[in-house]
Amino acid sequence: MSRYKIAVQVVPRRGLLDPQGKAVADALHSLGFSNVASVYVGRHMVLEVEAADEGTAREQTNRMCAQLLANPVTEDFEIASVLSA
Amino acid sequence: MSRYKIAVQVVPRRGLLDPQGKAVADALHSLGFSNVASVYVGRHMVLEVEAADEGTAREQTNRMCAQLLANPVTEDFEIASVLSA
Repeated sequence: MSRYKIAVQVVPRRGLLDPQGKAVADALHSLGFSNVASVYVGRHMVLEVEAADEGTAREQTNRMCAQLLANPVTEDFEIASVLSA
Repeated sequence: MSRYKIAVQVVPRRGLLDPQGKAVADALHSLGFSNVASVYVGRHMVLEVEAADEGTAREQTNRMCAQLLANPVTEDFEIASVLSA
């Protein structure tokens, strides 16, 4: 078994309203950053997982995202990187 | 002026307690993913910024992180990527 450090990004699905991103964009405008066109806010998670190989680690992470880490109705997830830890 | 799509990651500073990550790790264990050693939960943000060049866009994003997007006491931020949009 090896340990893998897996970075996952969960983002609001494109086309759906992202009220948190809208609020951040408005706050940036108030601070004088008027050149910010839009902001999307999602989650960045780093998981440390014990697995036999990288493929198993990725497959397990996909299942974790589908079952718990991402909302399948409103969010998309992506495994950004898998590193041996 | 060009438009840049900038991905920023804000993570809890290492060594500080991350209660949200702990809660997610416990929930994954309850779902049977007993091989998850730890989870860190941060934010992933995508900003669309108008700027003269990539350097200016990066410099502005660093200022936005320091002023609003990250908590300087408990969080670290990193510009993960800058793409021409």
